[in-house]
Amino acid sequence: MSQAYVLLAHGSRRAASNDEVLVLAASLGERLQAPVAAAFIEQTQPDLASACEPLLAAGASTIRVLPYLLAAGRHLAEDIPALVDQCQQQWPHHHFTISDHVGGAPLMVELLAGLASSPINTDT
Amino acid sequence: MSQAYVLLAHGSRRAASNDEVLVLAASLGERLQAPVAAAFIEQTQPDLASACEPLLAAGASTIRVLPYLLAAGRHLAEDIPALVDQCQQQWPHHHFTISDHVGGAPLMVELLAGLASSPINTDT
Repeated sequence: MSQAYVLLAHGSRRAASNDEVLVLAASLGERLQAPVAAAFIEQTQPDLASACEPLLAAGASTIRVLPYLLAAGRHLAEDIPALVDQCQQQWPHHHFTISDHVGGAPLMVELLAGLASSPINTDT
Repeated sequence: MSQAYVLLAHGSRRAASNDEVLVLAASLGERLQAPVAAAFIEQTQPDLASACEPLLAAGASTIRVLPYLLAAGRHLAEDIPALVDQCQQQWPHHHFTISDHVGGAPLMVELLAGLASSPINTDT
């Protein structure tokens, strides 16, 4: 095994919001046919390093961090690179990379177009 | 003109984050070939009603609100329905609907799979 992924979300005090991220990470793992763990920047566990540890122990040589954030704000510019640097220092013989954030993904317009035409969730 | 859309984001103190939403709303308008405005729940303007007003004045009969949120939290469950209800009361002869949120979109796994395989943004 070589490549693994961490879906890194903001984290919420609401357990249901964090559970959504866990479910999404599992779905992404099936889609990629690769190990995908969920991690959270704040509010809840696991943090990034705790999520990486079992992936590396299972044989991953490279971990790509996928920032599950809509805005390119402080978390993306400062906090996530700092967290990834800490992991890189902790595991110098492994390789860590960061992808673009969800809000910057090429497919976002298509995803929104799908919501625009999908059955109505709430109708007031 | 009949159907228009409002991309409703959380709103940030960072102007650059809000600008990302404006750019995305413009791209979605081109994709849908329909009017799409951006609005914000807090921190900045326009709010939902202010974003709806010019769309309705231009002839929209139905406005679909697209919640630009990753988590199905309080904003989605309580705040957005309340804001949409206010619009419905303000414009009783028009029709307002709410789509699923971005985090619940069927295309999200595919969007993340794209990020997983895209060129690296930051490489530590």
